[in-house]
Amino acid sequence: MSGDNKAKVRVAVLVSGGGTNLQALIDAQKSNGLDGCEIVCVISSKPGVFALERAKAAGIPSAVVDRSEYSSSEEFDAAILKCLSDFNAELVILAGFLRILGPTVLNRFPRRILNVHPSLIPSFCGDGFYGLKVHEAALNYGVKVTGATVFYVNEITDGGEIILQKAVDILDGDTPQILQKRVMEQAEWIILPKATVIAAKEILKDKESSL
Amino acid sequence: MSGDNKAKVRVAVLVSGGGTNLQALIDAQKSNGLDGCEIVCVISSKPGVFALERAKAAGIPSAVVDRSEYSSSEEFDAAILKCLSDFNAELVILAGFLRILGPTVLNRFPRRILNVHPSLIPSFCGDGFYGLKVHEAALNYGVKVTGATVFYVNEITDGGEIILQKAVDILDGDTPQILQKRVMEQAEWIILPKATVIAAKEILKDKESSL
Repeated sequence: MSGDNKAKVRVAVLVSGGGTNLQALIDAQKSNGLDGCEIVCVISSKPGVFALERAKAAGIPSAVVDRSEYSSSEEFDAAILKCLSDFNAELVILAGFLRILGPTVLNRFPRRILNVHPSLIPSFCGDGFYGLKVHEAALNYGVKVTGATVFYVNEITDGGEIILQKAVDILDGDTPQILQKRVMEQAEWIILPKATVIAAKEILKDKESSL
Repeated sequence: MSGDNKAKVRVAVLVSGGGTNLQALIDAQKSNGLDGCEIVCVISSKPGVFALERAKAAGIPSAVVDRSEYSSSEEFDAAILKCLSDFNAELVILAGFLRILGPTVLNRFPRRILNVHPSLIPSFCGDGFYGLKVHEAALNYGVKVTGATVFYVNEITDGGEIILQKAVDILDGDTPQILQKRVMEQAEWIILPKATVIAAKEILKDKESSL
């Protein structure tokens, strides 16, 4: 399945919902902002989500690995691994993927799985900090600057090596919803494609040095 | 001692060393960037420090409350309070002041003491995080964005209400020293005068509403 783009790193995007971060990656690819990468598949842990429509509209193959069809996280992980293998994925981007990947997946893709978190790690991250809760925590603390972080996923929640971060000012009148939207627009959608390119370059370099 | 500037909030700046943050406040005052404030004194916890020279050059009265001359922190706090009282200080700015102020001072100046910390609180702050250690911690963690925070001092180290924060990108090749300098230039020296103005406005408002 390597095909024509021999030099391009094969990217799988894992989703569970609306897929706005997936869209940022698709848009980057369309405007040649995903240098050295090709999004080869979108894998959803839920059927019927809008992210799958986005994939279809962009002509990207997709698959559903429905978490509810597996009795254990190990079986689910095995199904995800199988799917990633079917698409010959080399780099995995978690883009609003609401499931924790277990050690079998992490060990198969060391420094090859990226996630984006809507805060400046190490602030407002770790277990319990997801979605709107992150922005609620930032507003409750009273910080004036927040942002987003893209990092390599490891076994510690939000604890892997940071690739990129971008700051976003908190403004008077911000609600968790308003802040969530601005952090997406001004940080997540910008640094996720950039970090994908950085991670892909590392893969290409590793490939060259192993030739 | 109120004198001519009836509408201006009387600001005391507490220092212990070189006084670069004091200089930022002096420069702001010179360029009319300390709206509603007047720096009426510089108080040093150490004799002979360069901050005292800066005060002298700017024509600002100064005093030394030498920590080593007091046998307890309570006596030192009492001497600081006496000095603040002598200058009729209304707002206190800790600008590289290396001593912890005790409850007698804090209770006398609730929401009237500002401090600046060289990170985006709540990251890399609290006991043990001061000076270069803050920047070492940020670089060791691998964050890509740091910054500075100005906050109202309360009994919790770096735990008071945040007034302003400003982000600073970490760059390849940064050392703790290089980063410390850039955080000062790009964040601390900018937000400390601005936060002083914000705090002074609150004092003026409180005064007006109590008339």
